[in-house]
Amino acid sequence: MPIPERQLIARLTAKSNRNSVSVLLGIGDDCALLRLSRSEDALVTTDLSLEGVHFRRDWQSPECIGHRCLTRGLSDIAAMGGSPIAAFLSLALPDGLPQKWVDRFFTGLLTLAKRHRVELAGGDTARSPDGVLADITVLGSIRRNRALRRSGARVGDQIYVSGELGESAATLHLLTQRKLRRRDLFPEPRIALGQWLSKRQIASAAIDISDGLSTDLSHICEESGVGAVIEAEAIPIHSMARKFGNQTERRTSSSGDFGLDLALHGGDDYELLFTAPGLKRVKRRIVGVKITRIGEIVPGSKMHLIRSGKKQAIVPLGWEHFRKNQ
Amino acid sequence: MPIPERQLIARLTAKSNRNSVSVLLGIGDDCALLRLSRSEDALVTTDLSLEGVHFRRDWQSPECIGHRCLTRGLSDIAAMGGSPIAAFLSLALPDGLPQKWVDRFFTGLLTLAKRHRVELAGGDTARSPDGVLADITVLGSIRRNRALRRSGARVGDQIYVSGELGESAATLHLLTQRKLRRRDLFPEPRIALGQWLSKRQIASAAIDISDGLSTDLSHICEESGVGAVIEAEAIPIHSMARKFGNQTERRTSSSGDFGLDLALHGGDDYELLFTAPGLKRVKRRIVGVKITRIGEIVPGSKMHLIRSGKKQAIVPLGWEHFRKNQ
Repeated sequence: MPIPERQLIARLTAKSNRNSVSVLLGIGDDCALLRLSRSEDALVTTDLSLEGVHFRRDWQSPECIGHRCLTRGLSDIAAMGGSPIAAFLSLALPDGLPQKWVDRFFTGLLTLAKRHRVELAGGDTARSPDGVLADITVLGSIRRNRALRRSGARVGDQIYVSGELGESAATLHLLTQRKLRRRDLFPEPRIALGQWLSKRQIASAAIDISDGLSTDLSHICEESGVGAVIEAEAIPIHSMARKFGNQTERRTSSSGDFGLDLALHGGDDYELLFTAPGLKRVKRRIVGVKITRIGEIVPGSKMHLIRSGKKQAIVPLGWEHFRKNQ
Repeated sequence: MPIPERQLIARLTAKSNRNSVSVLLGIGDDCALLRLSRSEDALVTTDLSLEGVHFRRDWQSPECIGHRCLTRGLSDIAAMGGSPIAAFLSLALPDGLPQKWVDRFFTGLLTLAKRHRVELAGGDTARSPDGVLADITVLGSIRRNRALRRSGARVGDQIYVSGELGESAATLHLLTQRKLRRRDLFPEPRIALGQWLSKRQIASAAIDISDGLSTDLSHICEESGVGAVIEAEAIPIHSMARKFGNQTERRTSSSGDFGLDLALHGGDDYELLFTAPGLKRVKRRIVGVKITRIGEIVPGSKMHLIRSGKKQAIVPLGWEHFRKNQ
């Protein structure tokens, strides 16, 4: 893409007219935040899923693609600590796509929707000139002033991550290398965890890991005006990524540990990355989800990785860049 | 597209889980209607704009494409009588698209947004494997229980349309026939008209004409469980469409009057089609917009056209079908 996403978003922000008093938070967080009532704020997020960019029909089942389409939106609601209410799907389908594929896509999407009591309340359909394209909008709500933002991290806050990182990137790597023919992952958006963090007022900042730990952490640092130090040994690397550590892919690694690279830059895991003041006690398991402390917020604006006692800069690669260069 | 839109929407409706109490109206109207506060309801609509399907870069300027992308969403809000609050844009761009094109697209979109005090509050960006694709979500609000729905038309209600019909379809026809090289139309969403109709409680049902008069009227008839009779001579046909009436394209016409066909089936005009009880006085001009009575709601479920004293069935062709068969 000729326009880096960040530049495009900066342009959007600069050009956008900020007259409306009811939009509390626009471009630059996981969701837009709008004041629609006295007690609750509304959250809105939109996420594209494009064939050939975000998924491949020969690599994933239709159910998996439908599930992941909605996961992208629900995960943004989770990152703000909100409750999803309704989803809206814009879907463009190419000529000749089997009806069965569409049915199975909806089965995947609606099974996840039902589990989170989200109603598919509208959308748009069109003929696609090329592949399948889906855009999901999720509307959610959150108690007034309780939304977890990217901008709240302060120096001394500890950095935490839910679950394990790198499974999605490791899978994609194996698919790309033709060492796997097909594999379905159904990442679960961390709705209950986000709600818990918001309700207990534990987290100072939060984001979901959709673009990769390095990129998503950089968003927290930028929005909060802080730096971060991450301990490589503390990162909960998924076993599937970890086993790459000593393998032949090492030559393509930026850190010398390809498993670490997958966890650091791979993205698409939909875990939550959050910060909390040092004095707050953060349990190792919250609402059944593993929580790991991986580092600390520091002064400045840079991100560093401590590995075997050595400090090195973290360059946020972003998943598109990372995947292109594998 | 292998799946007709109506079937897909029916499937969506059937499969959708309707647990949430806050969704008042889901798939099947211009917008979804959600109860988010005591005094106001929220409106949400999403609309796709795809290169090669909804626009062509060689036929329209970037400003026009950006304008029309937002118009599609605002027009849905207008059809419900609401006030737009915020827009969310998912935008996928192909490699090599000039930055200038993107800037001009935003200029078109944001100029319209500013005029209607709509904030562009979020969105998503991606690399497109093929052409430009944009999906706009618009969030609006309306006073509780005041949303204009498709389902309120009753027998004896008069049928009205705003502005003039067929300009967009006539333009597209000339572009297709290579009788025009390029032409920009900037249809204005009828926000003020929709609000006026809702506030004065004049309209019993309303829809915007995006798919064509015949198709959009059929939606009102289906949702309201009524039939309709339209007077051909009363339809306000735009001069650009009208001049086709006696020309060579007659052979491709279903009614024998190609200008009438363009107004009846062409779509993309973003005028409002609404019904009002016979006893309500509807002015010929509302908030500066021409209003024309074109027919009446009748018992049954069929739609008819009266032309030179003769009655014929109206088959809702829908713009995609109509355009394909030109």
